Amino acid sequence: MNVVELKQEAPAGLVKVSRHGSVLRLEMNNPPANALSIAMMEALKDEFDAAREDKSVRVVILASATPGKLFCAGHDLKELTVHRADEDRGRAFFARTMKLCAEVMQTIVHLPVPVIAEVDGLATAAGCQLVASCDLAMCTDTSTFCTPGVNIGLFCSTPMVALSRNVHRKQAMEMLLTGETIDASTAREFGLINRIMPRQYLNQVVMKYAEVIASKSPLTVKIGKEAFYRQAEMTLSDAYEYTAGVMVENMMARDAEEGIGAFIAKRKPEWTGE
Amino acid sequence: MNVVELKQEAPAGLVKVSRHGSVLRLEMNNPPANALSIAMMEALKDEFDAAREDKSVRVVILASATPGKLFCAGHDLKELTVHRADEDRGRAFFARTMKLCAEVMQTIVHLPVPVIAEVDGLATAAGCQLVASCDLAMCTDTSTFCTPGVNIGLFCSTPMVALSRNVHRKQAMEMLLTGETIDASTAREFGLINRIMPRQYLNQVVMKYAEVIASKSPLTVKIGKEAFYRQAEMTLSDAYEYTAGVMVENMMARDAEEGIGAFIAKRKPEWTGE
Amino acid sequence: MNVVELKQEAPAGLVKVSRHGSVLRLEMNNPPANALSIAMMEALKDEFDAAREDKSVRVVILASATPGKLFCAGHDLKELTVHRADEDRGRAFFARTMKLCAEVMQTIVHLPVPVIAEVDGLATAAGCQLVASCDLAMCTDTSTFCTPGVNIGLFCSTPMVALSRNVHRKQAMEMLLTGETIDASTAREFGLINRIMPRQYLNQVVMKYAEVIASKSPLTVKIGKEAFYRQAEMTLSDAYEYTAGVMVENMMARDAEEGIGAFIAKRKPEWTGE
Repeated sequence: MNVVELKQEAPAGLVKVSRHGSVLRLEMNNPPANALSIAMMEALKDEFDAAREDKSVRVVILASATPGKLFCAGHDLKELTVHRADEDRGRAFFARTMKLCAEVMQTIVHLPVPVIAEVDGLATAAGCQLVASCDLAMCTDTSTFCTPGVNIGLFCSTPMVALSRNVHRKQAMEMLLTGETIDASTAREFGLINRIMPRQYLNQVVMKYAEVIASKSPLTVKIGKEAFYRQAEMTLSDAYEYTAGVMVENMMARDAEEGIGAFIAKRKPEWTGE
Repeated sequence: MNVVELKQEAPAGLVKVSRHGSVLRLEMNNPPANALSIAMMEALKDEFDAAREDKSVRVVILASATPGKLFCAGHDLKELTVHRADEDRGRAFFARTMKLCAEVMQTIVHLPVPVIAEVDGLATAAGCQLVASCDLAMCTDTSTFCTPGVNIGLFCSTPMVALSRNVHRKQAMEMLLTGETIDASTAREFGLINRIMPRQYLNQVVMKYAEVIASKSPLTVKIGKEAFYRQAEMTLSDAYEYTAGVMVENMMARDAEEGIGAFIAKRKPEWTGE
Repeated sequence: MNVVELKQEAPAGLVKVSRHGSVLRLEMNNPPANALSIAMMEALKDEFDAAREDKSVRVVILASATPGKLFCAGHDLKELTVHRADEDRGRAFFARTMKLCAEVMQTIVHLPVPVIAEVDGLATAAGCQLVASCDLAMCTDTSTFCTPGVNIGLFCSTPMVALSRNVHRKQAMEMLLTGETIDASTAREFGLINRIMPRQYLNQVVMKYAEVIASKSPLTVKIGKEAFYRQAEMTLSDAYEYTAGVMVENMMARDAEEGIGAFIAKRKPEWTGE
């Protein structure tokens, strides 16, 4: 694996960035809990925004810089609490926090390249929401997941937006109402996680999936990812009208001509991303 | 467990009501099938309405007064049939029945406190719909579920509204088109049921879950339950805009301040429900 | 089983049609891949349209004339490629293809009788979409499923409309982004398939299900199937208002009167389809 460290702002940067070929790896690095402070969410958003602009990035992996413990524990409760001393009792700061959080999550969804959550440890509240917001999620067999806001008087109302679009209603409701922690196996059964594996294989397997996806035409992946989330919100009839148009545009692209031509000729396609 | 019988209108009341601390237990008591006659649905709706007004109720358990046999067999076919002799061949009565049924189901969904279905036996048609409409559902390992209206010429069109919001389409369609009965284990796999257990543990486990939920801030639970079902019907973007606002209001509430403060201070929170 | 060959246009017709009582069996017969050429899709659409007009048809089974190999491999890539030589580089032909494909899929959904996919082999791309579009799907334990358009530069954007309405998002995304093949057991776990069985039982079991459904009132099944897909796109409140009306109309039908009467009298109902 060719590891090129493209960018590593500071030894203790909130997001550790590394490149492995066309795969961008973002590691949340805000110990001990990878709390989603304003600074942390801005750092994440900046990296996702940069990934969107960098045409050489084909897949993003979102992980923790301290695997084995916490993936991400959600909002920074101490930061939120400090702002209760504000003149408005924190309202403006809370609104800023929630707005930024929703932007980060939607940035993942709207990113033209797939984002894979690589989880080794506990993903809680908005941390669980990050996992649910990624296109794919893989985790170690000891990872756990919860939306425990209800335990501290703050229901996981934004996390549930992503969670309830991943799993069945009663399963989401059980997590939300009890705050209980589910194990990796249950998370996979629910649909929150794609693959589970022992810790020693996690990096390797996630990179393998990332490389498989990175080997596809980036234009094709971009077209497909965008269409997936858009059609999901439409009626069947609208979804077919919309995606039929998407398919025609996709067919007109050079990469589809190349890919289909290569398939018929039984040779390997060469993508230009056009 | 402190059992206070708050209300027990008649020995053979259609709904047996009991209180266990802040947990309200409603037992359908219309033997042999707990058929949802007009009287039965009105009794259920009255109890749910009363629960909404009673601020001391934190969780509702919906069960059968005759566990081990039927949870609920759905509409009262004899009552419906009698009205075929009406001048309008029953149309007005059927409309009243279906309207009331839809109201009962939506009353559960809109209730500010969680409702847990405690099932020991067969839940069929609108009885299965009751289970699907509750926020959580737990059952014995011998419980069974079906939507067999198709067998009697009356497709389970209202039950499927709740069912299809709990389970995948093909699974719902198999139940609806064949009328077949699924066992507890299949119901859990499908997402209709949260937990299965042997009969001797059912009451105990459901009460344990109810008490866990009842120990949370009722305001927080109310905010979260309402937001859950509302956001589920929105686009991702609208859902985030809406729930971000919900989170801010939740943060401004005293219970969130208390809960987060207690969490940071590592002490037990004390809820005021404000 | 009484097999009546109602229609068999040519020995090598693109769709082999046979009748088994009230069950219509359509076998895709476009070897080697059952590719969905324009002619193939038109043949399928014609047969579905004919089934809608033929009141004696109660259930449709969609299968392959070459079981054990391919169920259907999706669009005809060679046919599409030929049209790249058109003056418009194929745009009009691609649009015609995608429009027709969307029509075939929606014809299945809107057909008043249930359609069961009987799969023995590989269902890929629009072939997987056919399976997802059917009301029920059963397959052999060696059947496999994939949406591998991404491998040839053409994302499975129309197949995902059906797929993502059958399975959870992350599961659909894994299939779509990697192009990987899932086995029968995974397809069942995901919700794409209702039943899996060894090859020697497939015909028999699918026919048994078809006969069970064919034994119901066709009017009731028609009412229910239509209502199912319509309510699925509504808010809870609208869905209840709509289906409550559907239930009343269903109650007024002769078959509901007969079915409920027979149930109360403990006799077998006799359907008239009215």
